[in-house]
Order: sequence, then structure tokens, then C-alpha cells
Amino acid sequence: MNFKKKVRQSFARQRIMDLIGAKLTKVEKGFCEIQLPYKIELTQQDAFVHAGMIGTIADSAGGYAAYTLMEEGASVLTIEYKLNLLAPAIGDIFIARSKVVKAGKIITVCNSEVFAKTGKKEKLCATATVTLIALRIK
Amino acid sequence: MNFKKKVRQSFARQRIMDLIGAKLTKVEKGFCEIQLPYKIELTQQDAFVHAGMIGTIADSAGGYAAYTLMEEGASVLTIEYKLNLLAPAIGDIFIARSKVVKAGKIITVCNSEVFAKTGKKEKLCATATVTLIALRIK
Amino acid sequence: MNFKKKVRQSFARQRIMDLIGAKLTKVEKGFCEIQLPYKIELTQQDAFVHAGMIGTIADSAGGYAAYTLMEEGASVLTIEYKLNLLAPAIGDIFIARSKVVKAGKIITVCNSEVFAKTGKKEKLCATATVTLIALRIK
Amino acid sequence: MNFKKKVRQSFARQRIMDLIGAKLTKVEKGFCEIQLPYKIELTQQDAFVHAGMIGTIADSAGGYAAYTLMEEGASVLTIEYKLNLLAPAIGDIFIARSKVVKAGKIITVCNSEVFAKTGKKEKLCATATVTLIALRIK
Repeated sequence: MNFKKKVRQSFARQRIMDLIGAKLTKVEKGFCEIQLPYKIELTQQDAFVHAGMIGTIADSAGGYAAYTLMEEGASVLTIEYKLNLLAPAIGDIFIARSKVVKAGKIITVCNSEVFAKTGKKEKLCATATVTLIALRIK
Repeated sequence: MNFKKKVRQSFARQRIMDLIGAKLTKVEKGFCEIQLPYKIELTQQDAFVHAGMIGTIADSAGGYAAYTLMEEGASVLTIEYKLNLLAPAIGDIFIARSKVVKAGKIITVCNSEVFAKTGKKEKLCATATVTLIALRIK
Repeated sequence: MNFKKKVRQSFARQRIMDLIGAKLTKVEKGFCEIQLPYKIELTQQDAFVHAGMIGTIADSAGGYAAYTLMEEGASVLTIEYKLNLLAPAIGDIFIARSKVVKAGKIITVCNSEVFAKTGKKEKLCATATVTLIALRIK
Repeated sequence: MNFKKKVRQSFARQRIMDLIGAKLTKVEKGFCEIQLPYKIELTQQDAFVHAGMIGTIADSAGGYAAYTLMEEGASVLTIEYKLNLLAPAIGDIFIARSKVVKAGKIITVCNSEVFAKTGKKEKLCATATVTLIALRIK
């Protein structure tokens, strides 16, 4: 269960998550979920949550999904991410779920989906591919 | 000069820019610059600015560069963006500059560069491609 | 069943598919599969199939998956695609399967997976996101 | 001038370049150009060159631009590429030019531009970002 602890500790150090109000809600081997409640401070000109916030949780969910599979002593860094916005980011809460597609010794690739939840209903509002690198600190 | 006004008005409605502390610093035909000063509240686990914040300013700079060339009555929406992180986001201030690469009636594509400025020195820390759509509201 | 016919007719006009030896093997609403047998003429410097060929079938599979859901008279065009290479393209045959993730009136987004099949075994060797536009010809 | 030789030798082993008719036309430190003459065998349903072919030369140009800066004994592999199609691929010849944006010990990022040349006139028809990895074979 060590991987859950290291993810929770790293997430707790991401000050940005506090600022925007995001919570780490699930960590499994090769999987991570982050939730971000709607607040008006996160919005763009039309009162939708800004695409950059959707990207932020999609990226962090991908990073931590990858991190669960990395060996001890490795640190995780995003090389690139690519986000497709499929529907306006309107809802009570936004849920990013990311799965490892390919875990390599150096490179890991994750697919993230972001759902806008309103009441009980979830709607897919974005998908992302996140490419990460494992760095060994000596 | 109408295009500058419409960009400034739209930017002023992006509540997220207030939250993170980003400023619109330049608007020209087919070009936009946004600056984001470093603050600890924006960081990830290693005290670098979170990739999602870099994406946020790269995306908005792209959106507004595109918006300067769109006809009146059109509204701009990001379809997708793709961000490559080239160096750790360390510096005093982060400057996103975006240029329109291709302006179409429906689709516009912009390239954004994000520089980390420390003292007088700027270092390229990320590049992004942003694909936008012009929506006509009737 | 009209959508199958229009896809088959369009695919038959893609001369490149003849050159590389690709076949359209499945068409469903929102889905398309294309197969490409290995041949030495398709390879890069290490005798793996070139990433560009993997991209070619991932893109066409995405385009035709999208096309199955487009209204009559619309023509389909790729705006952008993004390909992650997960494993060397070695195998007897490469199978691109693409699904529509979001079908819009203007923009459609598809996710493609490319598998390298050797004997009975399939291995995921690439994933792609393909963003398409429906053009109405008047 | 060793880097030119290693690029030319590697390119000569890319059998796919023969099949489609692409030529390596320029190699400098951090730069590569590949040209692909139009032929009907390369086209999609509307007689434009298929996006996959544009991706093929954009990817190889990026790979070899990166390769010029890699140390001896390293081999280059594409991790991912992302292609935006800006104009229909119509012209006499297609010219992919790629520049290294960031050369790292492990990861290199290149930006490729593809121009459609008709007579003396060049038109930008696609841009790509290519992310590559240097593999050390022991």
C-alpha cells in the first residue's frame, strides 16, 4: 500500500490543488481520480470552468496514475499533455480519472477522462493523453 | 482598435486569471501575451509552477490571439491544446506569447510559447499548439 | 446501412491505402477498423513499421468512424491528430480500431488504438486522438 | 560532419521513404528537411496527399533534426507526434522542415512545418510537434 501513501504525500505538497479546491479521491495501481468542485473563481468569460483547470486535474491525475507504478526513488514529471474539450465545463463537480495505458521504465503514457457531474449524472467533457517520465534522483 | 477592447473585456471576465494572478500584457492582430508572476500557491510538489498553470496561460493567450482576427459577433472556444514542457517552471514570472499560425473562418490554430523570466533573462519553458473554433451566436 | 456504403466508397478512393496495402475490415456506427499487413517496404531504419504508417491507419480509421455519424452531404476532414507510440511496430499485421468519443455537428473527436498482431496475440502499439470537421459542400 | 553521415545512412535504411518517394534534402545541426513530390498514389479520397504522408515526413524530419544533436551510440525513437493540418495538401512537392526546440539528454522536442510548393510558391499546410527519446544501446 506504499504507493498510495507516496501519492497522497506528493499530492498534499501540490499547493495549486488547495488554491483551486481539488481533492485526491482515489488511488489504485495504475489509476488515479481527482475531483474539483465548481466555483466561480475558476471560470472563463462564459462562466464555464476554464480549460486550463480541466487540464490541471487531467494532468495531475495522469501523473499520479503513472507514479503508482514507478519504482521507489523515482520522481515523475510530465513531458507533454494534450487535452480535447468535448463539452462546456458546466456542472457541480469535475472528476478526472486517469489510467496508465503503457508503463515503461522511462516513459509512461496515461489516458485521462474528465466528467462534469451535475446531480447524479456524469457527462464526459474532456479527454487527455499525458506522457510522463520517471526521473531517478541520485 | 476594437479588437483590443473586445479581448480586454473578455479577459476581464475570466475570473480564473484573478485567482492565479495573471495579467493580459499585450494584444496585437494575431498575437497575445499573458504574464503570470510566480507564487507558491501555484506550485506542484517540487515548488515549480504546476504544468496546468502553464497550460492555462498558453491556452488563454492562444484563444485571444485567435479572437483578435475573428469577425464581430463570433465567440471563441478551445477545441484542443497540446503542451510540451521543456524545462522546469522556475522563475520570477511566466510569459505566454501566442501567434496565429492559420486563421480560418471556422478553425484557427495558434502556437504559444511560455518563457520563464528570472531577472532579465528569459528561458523557453513550454510550447503549445492551441486549436480554436469560432462560434456564431444567433 | 447507407453509412457503410459511403465509407467503403470513400476508402476505395484513398489511393494511398493501395500503395501501403491497407484494408478496411469493419465499419459500424461510430466505429471503424483498418488492417495493414507488415511489409518491408513500410519500415524505418530498424525494420519496424514507420510511425507515419501507424499514424496513417489511425487517422483514416478515425476519419471513417466519424464519417459514419455525419449527415448526408457532409464531407470529413482531419483537423489534427496526435499519436503516442507505445511499443515498436513489429508484428504480422497492424490493426487500427477507432471509436467516436464525441460527435458534434461541426467537430467530432475519435480515439484510435493500433494493435500489432503476431500469430493470435495482439499487442497495443499506439494510441491516437483524431479531431475531425464536417464540411458541408453546397 | 559526422552527424550528416549518420543521418544520411539512417535515412537510406528507411524503406518507406523509397516507397513514397521522399528525399532527404538538407541536414544541419538541429535541423532537417525532407521533400516529397506529389503523386496520385499518395492521395486520399479528394486527391489531396493523405494526412498520414504529411505526418510521415514531419515525423522523420523531426527525428533526424533531433538525431543530429544526439551523442554517438544513441539511437532515436519517436515517443509521440501531433500534427495540425492547416490547408489541403495540394501542390507539386511537399517540404517538411524541422527544428530542434529543446535538446535534452533523454528527451528532445522538435517543431516541424510542412509546406506545399506549387511552382515557386510555398504555402504552410501543416505543423507538427515531435517528441523523441535517445536510447543508448549497450
